[in-house]
Amino acid sequence: MTKVAVVGATGYAGAELVRILAMHPEIDLAMITSRQYAGKRFAAIYPGMETLSPLVCEPLEIETLDQRADLVFLALPHELPMTIAPRLIAAGIRVVDLSADFRFASRERYEAAYQPHRAPELLESAVYGLSEVYTVLIADAVLVGNPGCYPTTVLLPLVPLLRERLVDPESLVADAKSGVSGAGRSPSLATHFCEVNESYKPYKVAVHRHNPEMDEVLSREAQTDVHITFVPHLVPMTRGMLTTIYAQPAAGVTEAQIWDCLRSAYDNAPFVRLCTDGRIPDTRFVRGTNFCDIGLRLDAVNNRLVLMAAIDNLVKGAAGQAVQNMNLMLDIDESCGLMPAPYPL
Amino acid sequence: MTKVAVVGATGYAGAELVRILAMHPEIDLAMITSRQYAGKRFAAIYPGMETLSPLVCEPLEIETLDQRADLVFLALPHELPMTIAPRLIAAGIRVVDLSADFRFASRERYEAAYQPHRAPELLESAVYGLSEVYTVLIADAVLVGNPGCYPTTVLLPLVPLLRERLVDPESLVADAKSGVSGAGRSPSLATHFCEVNESYKPYKVAVHRHNPEMDEVLSREAQTDVHITFVPHLVPMTRGMLTTIYAQPAAGVTEAQIWDCLRSAYDNAPFVRLCTDGRIPDTRFVRGTNFCDIGLRLDAVNNRLVLMAAIDNLVKGAAGQAVQNMNLMLDIDESCGLMPAPYPL
Amino acid sequence: MTKVAVVGATGYAGAELVRILAMHPEIDLAMITSRQYAGKRFAAIYPGMETLSPLVCEPLEIETLDQRADLVFLALPHELPMTIAPRLIAAGIRVVDLSADFRFASRERYEAAYQPHRAPELLESAVYGLSEVYTVLIADAVLVGNPGCYPTTVLLPLVPLLRERLVDPESLVADAKSGVSGAGRSPSLATHFCEVNESYKPYKVAVHRHNPEMDEVLSREAQTDVHITFVPHLVPMTRGMLTTIYAQPAAGVTEAQIWDCLRSAYDNAPFVRLCTDGRIPDTRFVRGTNFCDIGLRLDAVNNRLVLMAAIDNLVKGAAGQAVQNMNLMLDIDESCGLMPAPYPL
Amino acid sequence: MTKVAVVGATGYAGAELVRILAMHPEIDLAMITSRQYAGKRFAAIYPGMETLSPLVCEPLEIETLDQRADLVFLALPHELPMTIAPRLIAAGIRVVDLSADFRFASRERYEAAYQPHRAPELLESAVYGLSEVYTVLIADAVLVGNPGCYPTTVLLPLVPLLRERLVDPESLVADAKSGVSGAGRSPSLATHFCEVNESYKPYKVAVHRHNPEMDEVLSREAQTDVHITFVPHLVPMTRGMLTTIYAQPAAGVTEAQIWDCLRSAYDNAPFVRLCTDGRIPDTRFVRGTNFCDIGLRLDAVNNRLVLMAAIDNLVKGAAGQAVQNMNLMLDIDESCGLMPAPYPL
Repeated sequence: MTKVAVVGATGYAGAELVRILAMHPEIDLAMITSRQYAGKRFAAIYPGMETLSPLVCEPLEIETLDQRADLVFLALPHELPMTIAPRLIAAGIRVVDLSADFRFASRERYEAAYQPHRAPELLESAVYGLSEVYTVLIADAVLVGNPGCYPTTVLLPLVPLLRERLVDPESLVADAKSGVSGAGRSPSLATHFCEVNESYKPYKVAVHRHNPEMDEVLSREAQTDVHITFVPHLVPMTRGMLTTIYAQPAAGVTEAQIWDCLRSAYDNAPFVRLCTDGRIPDTRFVRGTNFCDIGLRLDAVNNRLVLMAAIDNLVKGAAGQAVQNMNLMLDIDESCGLMPAPYPL
Repeated sequence: MTKVAVVGATGYAGAELVRILAMHPEIDLAMITSRQYAGKRFAAIYPGMETLSPLVCEPLEIETLDQRADLVFLALPHELPMTIAPRLIAAGIRVVDLSADFRFASRERYEAAYQPHRAPELLESAVYGLSEVYTVLIADAVLVGNPGCYPTTVLLPLVPLLRERLVDPESLVADAKSGVSGAGRSPSLATHFCEVNESYKPYKVAVHRHNPEMDEVLSREAQTDVHITFVPHLVPMTRGMLTTIYAQPAAGVTEAQIWDCLRSAYDNAPFVRLCTDGRIPDTRFVRGTNFCDIGLRLDAVNNRLVLMAAIDNLVKGAAGQAVQNMNLMLDIDESCGLMPAPYPL
Repeated sequence: MTKVAVVGATGYAGAELVRILAMHPEIDLAMITSRQYAGKRFAAIYPGMETLSPLVCEPLEIETLDQRADLVFLALPHELPMTIAPRLIAAGIRVVDLSADFRFASRERYEAAYQPHRAPELLESAVYGLSEVYTVLIADAVLVGNPGCYPTTVLLPLVPLLRERLVDPESLVADAKSGVSGAGRSPSLATHFCEVNESYKPYKVAVHRHNPEMDEVLSREAQTDVHITFVPHLVPMTRGMLTTIYAQPAAGVTEAQIWDCLRSAYDNAPFVRLCTDGRIPDTRFVRGTNFCDIGLRLDAVNNRLVLMAAIDNLVKGAAGQAVQNMNLMLDIDESCGLMPAPYPL
Repeated sequence: MTKVAVVGATGYAGAELVRILAMHPEIDLAMITSRQYAGKRFAAIYPGMETLSPLVCEPLEIETLDQRADLVFLALPHELPMTIAPRLIAAGIRVVDLSADFRFASRERYEAAYQPHRAPELLESAVYGLSEVYTVLIADAVLVGNPGCYPTTVLLPLVPLLRERLVDPESLVADAKSGVSGAGRSPSLATHFCEVNESYKPYKVAVHRHNPEMDEVLSREAQTDVHITFVPHLVPMTRGMLTTIYAQPAAGVTEAQIWDCLRSAYDNAPFVRLCTDGRIPDTRFVRGTNFCDIGLRLDAVNNRLVLMAAIDNLVKGAAGQAVQNMNLMLDIDESCGLMPAPYPL
């Protein structure tokens, strides 16, 4: 079995990776690293895993990593992966990076949103890991830039519609809402229980770094320059993300045509569930799963389209999609290890 | 002092009215009614009021109400107030109705959204109780139709901008989010703790009854037919409402002009706080208050305006605005009884 | 494979059973029933199961149930199971009942706490389904009375200590805390989000029906009449139960002896995790699992023992323990289908 | 009017003090200090106070403080107040300290739980600020050590019963539960939203520093050496504290005698509400208030007494009781500025 490592195993996305990979029947989770907790058992950090996993956090030693793993997940803050990935790839290791470092094709776009890129030579071959959209490319990729959580909810509903020119690319607004785990595990006033609980607010209005990430993919797929107005909000809950998208349908486009377009795009996608029966997506129904539930309504009076997409930000929005990409890369069934029944509540 | 009654005192909006009125220094809360709890002390239903109020819930007896109160708040489900208000008004009592029954000038609009109106003759003289917009009319009104919570968050930021034609009336989208108390006190699966907690979802997408209420006022103030795309969402918290509004500014309009317009509209409004320093509204900062905090951003790339308005749905969105209207009607200082310092958290 | 049915599949405990059994590799979940939702797909009631289960809720038809299932779970309110179980058993079906109807050996105790028993002839052969304590009896049982959630948290730590007379049976106090899902799915004011959220309170202080259930087992195992003071509290969270137990150790008993006793009782129990490293149990670490985490401290000053036990009230406290019992009855590995890795948060 | 200052105004207890004092009609909140936010407006830190308070945080300058205030609240972490209080008192300023530094009469007890005391000469004259118990001493005090939140919930119900020897002082157990705001405003993993939400756990089991604080007062009032077993728990909510106390009544003591004792102790106490009608205390009903609601039940089978006390940890458990003490010290009505009607939810 393929040996797999998780670098940065004790952040929330890393820990979610460990949860999934520890039970994955087709790979061998051979090692995990943590700078902060090196030498400690993973189950001492996440006691829910007590008796389930004997893994011990190790320090990251890039030189010897190629003897330990064939594929490495990088679950680190951006800026670190671009210093690590080149050496792993040079050693013949395939990489799924969960940070923003390899999500952009355009170095300029990346550098405008983040900082100077230290491995720009890898950007061209890196594949954007939106599993359902770039399936074939991912299968052959050496380096996958796993999408951001917000972009996943925006791109899955919009890409097919833009490709078929069913919506006006100048009309796009994404009003997105995320649970607090999206902000990561580092303590801060912004994630203090008392500051978040019983509170609802937008943040980084129209200046969030996921905006250029979406714009690049939307523009590529629409074959025209697209900028979506993107406003994220923080919801007082741990997990879950729901994005409400507003768009103007092209002249004459009907609701049935929109569903047809989405259906033909995702007919064979095990993790995209189209709510064609009128059900409205709810984060509760995708909690802990790799699903993306997509619903829609047409505001009949002014013919405006409302798309809704719900995911678990830590699963389809991070670790789950990363494992889905690994499955594709290793030619394992796409949903292997990713199909637990979700809790009823 | 004016004697005041609350009809329907034990629902959430009614109880919030009792809280405010019980401490109001310029009126006398003379009686409260409750069908369900007639004969019981209010503090037995809401034990937080124990030792603070000796009020006992009475059954509603319309015939004798004019001897008990000069002004009556109706905090009942719609359909009931339109059978009660005519008799109160005939008896010389002024009425603030918190339901939808007297919010509409257009009988057709009301009947399309609700049911046949049984007191259509009152619609013309009833005043829409958006305190900051219809201040003068409210002062002289016999019957006030207190606004819905969602319309309050949509209209306060948009009315001045539409009046001055600073935004395109065809471009409007309101993505609104409400705490659960907006759904009222009656138990239902939709308000069961386990169904709401750790859950986020839209509901009544583009078909909510507050939509025609907003549309009527927006159209009147814009002097053109306006339909806003309105999508409400349920947030796992008890109180609070935040609406994010997307609009296209008219050609050449700058952010400064928009602030100037809002400033001149609300310069003397004690409960509208304009976040001109860049602060982003947060429901936490208006919790338990009658404030409406308004912020804005311009998405520079595509020149789209993002307006944000936060209120407490039970206060400025219901009971607080009702008392503000009473203050105006009784020529009491507008903020009397409505200015407690909010909790820091 | 054994065919299994769930009667009452759409309550919270029933739905949790469906979640576990739908993925269970060694049995066939052949049918589910629901009075309220007969004819509807389970996934229409719990949309999280969409694409994962095609099961349709059926009405309960006892006459033909023996042709559909070999073992039946009854996830119904008490009083119903005692009218159904006799007929199932007569038809050769084995039964795991999640209500209180078959938890008591003493008819008097049951009738004092609940109502007249309509199948008292079954009480003697029914086995109390505390999996780790009555393992052998359960394996051979025709009818298992699955324990209440609170008793599970009280009995697992106390039974071994009472058997070995390490604690004074007259000194016992259990201060228990439960998430709201323990109250079931039926809407009520007591489970309304706004009434529970940001609220903490005891209820049924020293008069809860789980008290005599505990007392019967404690008395049997201590071989003396035991009454524990039991006070449940409601916690504003969906799932999870933690009980803090106070007891006087017998003269001279040390902390090490108490751990030894628990260790020898649960050495081979896959779902009891003893926190011998000083970790304090937290409901978060057992969420969604069948584990019971047990910790302890000795208050050195007055030599009082503090035991802490955490479970997921819907899993080890209901559906999970029921499946564990089924595994024992069917001679399947005890943990089969019950060992998913818990979410990190 | 007396000029009052708050030192440490931007922590949660300090901010709650500002909220109450800013609206207090009988004193003048003349200055507030904050090391971290010196030079910033208070309303910039707590935007809920925008338009309500123009106060600006100042650095602490002890030398000139006596020209600015007649009474100072110290809302700082322990260890700081004992270096500041002596100089304030020497300058003729009265002090209410919210930390533990002046709560203990016994230097040994303080130093065993905290650290070496740097102003031990003040311990004898400092008064323990449990308002209802030490009312007369507080009125004349120069220095008040404001009680901890947990001790407030334990002492108010127990002190009268111990004084009259109605309960066995060797039998006491306090199982206490607190909202997260009790942990203060400094970010930490322990207060991270995702670590607390949907989680319930004990902490510092039988080793919390509030334990010796309670023990000292209990021992003094019982006139015998008392050690209570004290186990605090963390509840996923912002505010609120509820403690369940277990005690053995003295031989022959009835429930009526216990109520009589509490009634005669608190008959004139505006903030102690005895739930003699059987109501069970709930943190929701004291939220944002200075009330302590006390209820009780007798477990008839083994004659064990269950006392329950609920407070808002930031009000009666900190800032509210501090203001109550100030009112007593300044001969203002005890409840002045402390009687807002609580929100219905």
